[in-house]
Amino acid sequence: MMKVAIVGGTGYTGVELLRLLIKHPQVQIQTITSRTEAGKNVTDLFPSLRGHLDLKFTEPTQENLIASNVVFFATPNGIAMQDTPALLKAGVKVIDLAADFRIKDVATWEKWYGMTHNCPELIEEAVYGLPELNRSKIAKARLIANPGCYPTAVLLGFLPLIEAGIIDLDNLIADAKSGVSGAGRKANIPTLMSETGESFKAYNVAGHRHWPEICQSLNASAGTEVDLTFVPHLLPMIRGIEATLYSKTKQSIELDEIQNLFIQRYQNEPFVDVLPLNSHPETRNVRGVNICQLAVHKSNNKLVILSVIDNLVKGAAGQAIQNMNIISGLPETTGLTNVALAP
Amino acid sequence: MMKVAIVGGTGYTGVELLRLLIKHPQVQIQTITSRTEAGKNVTDLFPSLRGHLDLKFTEPTQENLIASNVVFFATPNGIAMQDTPALLKAGVKVIDLAADFRIKDVATWEKWYGMTHNCPELIEEAVYGLPELNRSKIAKARLIANPGCYPTAVLLGFLPLIEAGIIDLDNLIADAKSGVSGAGRKANIPTLMSETGESFKAYNVAGHRHWPEICQSLNASAGTEVDLTFVPHLLPMIRGIEATLYSKTKQSIELDEIQNLFIQRYQNEPFVDVLPLNSHPETRNVRGVNICQLAVHKSNNKLVILSVIDNLVKGAAGQAIQNMNIISGLPETTGLTNVALAP
Amino acid sequence: MMKVAIVGGTGYTGVELLRLLIKHPQVQIQTITSRTEAGKNVTDLFPSLRGHLDLKFTEPTQENLIASNVVFFATPNGIAMQDTPALLKAGVKVIDLAADFRIKDVATWEKWYGMTHNCPELIEEAVYGLPELNRSKIAKARLIANPGCYPTAVLLGFLPLIEAGIIDLDNLIADAKSGVSGAGRKANIPTLMSETGESFKAYNVAGHRHWPEICQSLNASAGTEVDLTFVPHLLPMIRGIEATLYSKTKQSIELDEIQNLFIQRYQNEPFVDVLPLNSHPETRNVRGVNICQLAVHKSNNKLVILSVIDNLVKGAAGQAIQNMNIISGLPETTGLTNVALAP
Amino acid sequence: MMKVAIVGGTGYTGVELLRLLIKHPQVQIQTITSRTEAGKNVTDLFPSLRGHLDLKFTEPTQENLIASNVVFFATPNGIAMQDTPALLKAGVKVIDLAADFRIKDVATWEKWYGMTHNCPELIEEAVYGLPELNRSKIAKARLIANPGCYPTAVLLGFLPLIEAGIIDLDNLIADAKSGVSGAGRKANIPTLMSETGESFKAYNVAGHRHWPEICQSLNASAGTEVDLTFVPHLLPMIRGIEATLYSKTKQSIELDEIQNLFIQRYQNEPFVDVLPLNSHPETRNVRGVNICQLAVHKSNNKLVILSVIDNLVKGAAGQAIQNMNIISGLPETTGLTNVALAP
Repeated sequence: MMKVAIVGGTGYTGVELLRLLIKHPQVQIQTITSRTEAGKNVTDLFPSLRGHLDLKFTEPTQENLIASNVVFFATPNGIAMQDTPALLKAGVKVIDLAADFRIKDVATWEKWYGMTHNCPELIEEAVYGLPELNRSKIAKARLIANPGCYPTAVLLGFLPLIEAGIIDLDNLIADAKSGVSGAGRKANIPTLMSETGESFKAYNVAGHRHWPEICQSLNASAGTEVDLTFVPHLLPMIRGIEATLYSKTKQSIELDEIQNLFIQRYQNEPFVDVLPLNSHPETRNVRGVNICQLAVHKSNNKLVILSVIDNLVKGAAGQAIQNMNIISGLPETTGLTNVALAP
Repeated sequence: MMKVAIVGGTGYTGVELLRLLIKHPQVQIQTITSRTEAGKNVTDLFPSLRGHLDLKFTEPTQENLIASNVVFFATPNGIAMQDTPALLKAGVKVIDLAADFRIKDVATWEKWYGMTHNCPELIEEAVYGLPELNRSKIAKARLIANPGCYPTAVLLGFLPLIEAGIIDLDNLIADAKSGVSGAGRKANIPTLMSETGESFKAYNVAGHRHWPEICQSLNASAGTEVDLTFVPHLLPMIRGIEATLYSKTKQSIELDEIQNLFIQRYQNEPFVDVLPLNSHPETRNVRGVNICQLAVHKSNNKLVILSVIDNLVKGAAGQAIQNMNIISGLPETTGLTNVALAP
Repeated sequence: MMKVAIVGGTGYTGVELLRLLIKHPQVQIQTITSRTEAGKNVTDLFPSLRGHLDLKFTEPTQENLIASNVVFFATPNGIAMQDTPALLKAGVKVIDLAADFRIKDVATWEKWYGMTHNCPELIEEAVYGLPELNRSKIAKARLIANPGCYPTAVLLGFLPLIEAGIIDLDNLIADAKSGVSGAGRKANIPTLMSETGESFKAYNVAGHRHWPEICQSLNASAGTEVDLTFVPHLLPMIRGIEATLYSKTKQSIELDEIQNLFIQRYQNEPFVDVLPLNSHPETRNVRGVNICQLAVHKSNNKLVILSVIDNLVKGAAGQAIQNMNIISGLPETTGLTNVALAP
Repeated sequence: MMKVAIVGGTGYTGVELLRLLIKHPQVQIQTITSRTEAGKNVTDLFPSLRGHLDLKFTEPTQENLIASNVVFFATPNGIAMQDTPALLKAGVKVIDLAADFRIKDVATWEKWYGMTHNCPELIEEAVYGLPELNRSKIAKARLIANPGCYPTAVLLGFLPLIEAGIIDLDNLIADAKSGVSGAGRKANIPTLMSETGESFKAYNVAGHRHWPEICQSLNASAGTEVDLTFVPHLLPMIRGIEATLYSKTKQSIELDEIQNLFIQRYQNEPFVDVLPLNSHPETRNVRGVNICQLAVHKSNNKLVILSVIDNLVKGAAGQAIQNMNIISGLPETTGLTNVALAP
């Protein structure tokens, strides 16, 4: 039985970790921290967990955390990096659901995140936790940088094409749309129901922090710099990301071949599901589950890849648990085999 | 391992039965019927089930059904009553999620449902499947009339008060609100997104089929005729029912006593959760789970009971499985212990 | 041409006043104040007004306000009472969309609003601005207390019955449901899309500030104290209030008579629309307009009145303009004849 | 005073025409036809119009229509072409909101719409009613093919770039998202609230009827064939289209220049609003109004144009009225100056 702690248990990725870990057969949730809610029953804040969890929020002290085998940071950016060195030293494995260890180039990270990194020496060691890309490294890691939600949806769609070397790297476009839960559980006017309901918009077109994160993995896969245009949009709904990915084949290739490429690339992946030809993945079909559904389309020499995930599951908490399973030597799907909630 | 069949697998209660039965450790889903989709893979219609189910829709023939131990009817009203006599004769147990066997008085049923009942002789035998009311009868039954969604939410809120004899029976009001999935998966203008989104209304104020169903159980519990005003409303969302129940105490009574009454009434009930005093249950906190959350309020001699369920789970498929567990001698919670999907 | 000012122009009632006043043929919007946004173009905050308004937010100073004929306070509770004495003295008329002058009993107001009133001497003079109740007083007023959104919907439904003396006053129930915009445009976790979308709940069952406000007018109309149970609920949508009102007739009365009662009561009211028998008003049918649609239902001796308004229009900004028209001697419907936006 | 008729008044574009025409100062709505609802009061079907319209649906006979100056067809595809020849002969002008006259190449039209055109001789005469492109031709036309909703949003974003000759024509991408009302008011499972709420998907990636329509105008503007990839998506909301348009500049160009290009292109256009640099248009800011809001972004040599409209207004009924104004010699903005409903 593994003992786990969650730092920052009051946000959406925190409660989603709880929802999934509660049913994980090999996990005992030992500690959930929250500075603001310390002392309160977790179920008072999240009545959806009543009957499943008998635990109070505690202060995020070292003592509370080092008693666990794995600590999840479901915190704002810049928190995990403060506690991680001591935890690793104490032999605790760390999975950061925020961005502190995602970007290998410290200067790039500091520019996009507007703060100084306080343990840059750990960045190199940290493994980017996209199992479909880095499974063997993850297995040996002490410190996992859990990928962002957009990067997960975009990378799983683009990687097979780039690895196969069949697309023009100067012309990648990711038009991505996210439910509002991606913005987190914090008091904020722009994500009020009255501001986001029954409306749709692009945002951060001039630059979004997930752009360098996506590029880092695409560049590594391509062996060169790709030119990616990434435009995020805000959907009038809670959960789900859809990414529509555009690229151009270098030479003539049949749609069947592209389909086969994806099927082969992901044939052993338990959490990537390539839909039959002519499919249109819907975010509701992955609601609550750790699955990425992909579909492949083509018109002339243009490819259109459709990718959907639940931003809180495969885009955050579910993928974090997948990583925990891998670093702990558990079967990768343990605790992650529930069925999507549709409708 | 129990073998089950679902008749009418293309509606929302059908797919919800599938979602839950797939993870039920003692069940093998043997047959899913649909006249219109026979021959098609179930996952082609419901991609949310991909990876979990390898089954095709079949014709709803007797041969396909009698090979099962239990048959669920997730069909429109009037279908189950046609097949049930033969199934019972063949030793198959029947759980009807529609209304064919809910009303004991045949004339009342025929008036409200606008058709002639074709096996009135089975109505008396059928057990109204609200386990919190009829558990021991259910355990011995061959034929279960699974309660309607509104009746489940309303009865669980009113029954403790009526059983305790503390409220005026001439003044019961149930103001109930349902998500759109309660109207089913059928082509219909009034339940289009464009008709129901961003709007709210009462409907069927002059009379709703769930009114006689609710009254039947309230009357039986009271030993006399209650006077219930029931007003259903349509919510601009998919899943969830909230019922706000109003009544008047016969004599002065403290809120604490009411709270204790509910706690005691439901102390052994795995699927009824009485919230702490001053709570306001939210439908999202029971999304996807077989739970009814209740809260008790009082102002002067008026009581206000708040009751929430997921109309597709405790209000339909989940309660049907709860009934199946009981009639099969399985622990009642088997396959029904998942955690609500919030947010 | 009347000159008007709006204090607190950054909230939803503020922008709604702007939307409507922009098209008002007799009004010139002179001043819109906001401490936080002073100096900024109004259309930078509200791009929906682009092309219609060339104005900047200014500081809410006396000088900025006394140049107007009418000042609207679209501010949080407790602000209008600070400026009103000086404005009245300067000959400016005041319409407060908040609650500062709604409750005649100062002690009651101070208890429910948790602050000391700083000009109690003006409370008596203030006229409660429900034109259907107080039109002639409004016409002579300097200071209007614009009604709350729930009170508007509830009072318009109950008043005809109480005035006619046909219902039992000990048993009034108002089950009211509001869109999220009623909670205002402020940073707040409970009204995030992720908290309120796809969910429904009652709130403040133990007591809501609109309860004493509703009772005050019902009591005055009845000439005695009524017993009203008022339960507000939060809808997963932006605009609209529906109130389902329950009462009991004192003696036998036909539905047709009730219908006629309502039709006669409101026959000269431009903004109250009594729907034909057997109707179910929908909030979308009054979206964006200053209309209350009512429908009357009956079962035995119980009456069910359905009432819908747009909380931001007839429940706030539209009614404020209706009051402005009346106190200014303009035709009451001036600027308020637009058509609802449905779907 | 112009007399107008609407054929097919029961759909969303029909009721939207009514909403706008009711307030049009130069129009008298004479006839609204519906085969299924003939004889019924229009306000019985659309209570949002109560108090504004005293008219019954009538049969769509020639006699009913030729008494009008202008007939709007708010019908499914294939209806307008049946009546148009006789109406034109009778001197009535026709504005078709469906697709019957949008595509100049008959074979192309017949392929995409799956029917034989019954008056191909009128196609050449018909003017594609995008005033920002064809104003002078519209002014002289008898027959207007009102543009589709997606084409309106996409063309207004791409045309300035193509006319200026600054982008690569082999690489145009339009990622477009529409509210559900675009699918019309018809009984249909895929557009039920339970199917489309809280979910998002691309659809018709292999081919959508608006693709040839968009290409036709882009090709004409470019003087050659452009290569456009067009992917429509379905939003979980009712009204609004957002199109995110991607292209590549042929040579280096500053963002300011692009911005100026758009400002100049649309400086005299009353219904196209180019937002300040770094804006992100939101569909809610054009809800209910005949406006297209555009914003221009750039990253390296890639341009990203954001375009929003209300699909029922600038994408249908509003633009039809704009065309009616032009062909009738009225000021183009007559009846179209209302303010958007936000929030």
